[in-house]
Amino acid sequence: MIGKEIDTLIHLLSKLPGIGPRSARRLALQMLKQKDHLLMPLSDALRDAAQSIKTCPICCNLDTVSPCNICSNNERDKSTICIVEQIGDLWALERTKVYKGYYHVLGGSLSALDNIGPEDLSISGLVKRAKDTEVKEIIIALNATVDGQTTSHYLIDRLQYCDVNVTRLAHGVPVGGALDYLDDGTLVTALKARSAIL
Amino acid sequence: MIGKEIDTLIHLLSKLPGIGPRSARRLALQMLKQKDHLLMPLSDALRDAAQSIKTCPICCNLDTVSPCNICSNNERDKSTICIVEQIGDLWALERTKVYKGYYHVLGGSLSALDNIGPEDLSISGLVKRAKDTEVKEIIIALNATVDGQTTSHYLIDRLQYCDVNVTRLAHGVPVGGALDYLDDGTLVTALKARSAIL
Repeated sequence: MIGKEIDTLIHLLSKLPGIGPRSARRLALQMLKQKDHLLMPLSDALRDAAQSIKTCPICCNLDTVSPCNICSNNERDKSTICIVEQIGDLWALERTKVYKGYYHVLGGSLSALDNIGPEDLSISGLVKRAKDTEVKEIIIALNATVDGQTTSHYLIDRLQYCDVNVTRLAHGVPVGGALDYLDDGTLVTALKARSAIL
Repeated sequence: MIGKEIDTLIHLLSKLPGIGPRSARRLALQMLKQKDHLLMPLSDALRDAAQSIKTCPICCNLDTVSPCNICSNNERDKSTICIVEQIGDLWALERTKVYKGYYHVLGGSLSALDNIGPEDLSISGLVKRAKDTEVKEIIIALNATVDGQTTSHYLIDRLQYCDVNVTRLAHGVPVGGALDYLDDGTLVTALKARSAIL
């Protein structure tokens, strides 16, 4: 009953993360109603992105230039590399505007269940970068999940013979978090890592 | 820090209904990762849809042909027209595969708050269609909201001199609905409209 073109559009939209068939129909309808303001610009934006997107050969970030804007920025702090699992994590850290060093995107975490081993992640490139004499500190900013922790331990193992300080993000009570909603693990970690204020 | 093309894409995605900046970033990232399977096909699908989409001059449905596939289907029941608010409602009714007549999409409902008057909806076209001698019944399938009810009353007023039966969808307990979660209005309606079973 719906045209083939609309059907294809709905089908593709429903493949996106967090979008089911019902949301896909709603999105498609909204786009079709706003043809000039949404449908055409979005189609162009997707095509432009597809044509210009590249994986950075240094840090594995996605960007429209190669090496990426971060790796090719000489004003950043060359002494620090921050390891993240995914590009989304890199974007999140960049939004804070606090970290000024470089990044390294692993592309995931080690996972026995999902059959992801060290060779599936960009670890050899990382070790090579860590041997650069300019690099003084490597910050491990992986997710605080079981897989993230496993990957952390593996990375520490691989980096132990490089002449760098390896650090990790602090664990504790999230800012704005209410204590009685926190899980026990976080509370124990926060208690153990308590800091003196007076 | 992100390329302009990616920024534009995220900005456009965040304009979609139910998608905020955070989801837009997640969607964009997912698309960029699956360039060949998602990004390019979606761009093409959007362009195809934009180029082929037309508003049906008869029922105001959106389709890739004009008149739409439903209006140009001569095997449907010519005696019935079902009035819906939005194209999404038409799609929902079509999915049931029970209704075989034609539709008329109003394009919204009368709303004093949103400043939508009768001239903003496709009512004159509907009255013209209702005067066709082949049309015997007009089903009002508007939302059971205040605006929907107001629009219903207005439509009944406009259609009273046309030689058609005007009906509306039944109101009552939704199939699968638990009584103690229902609002009082629905329960009262369901009780008043109770039907004999023995």
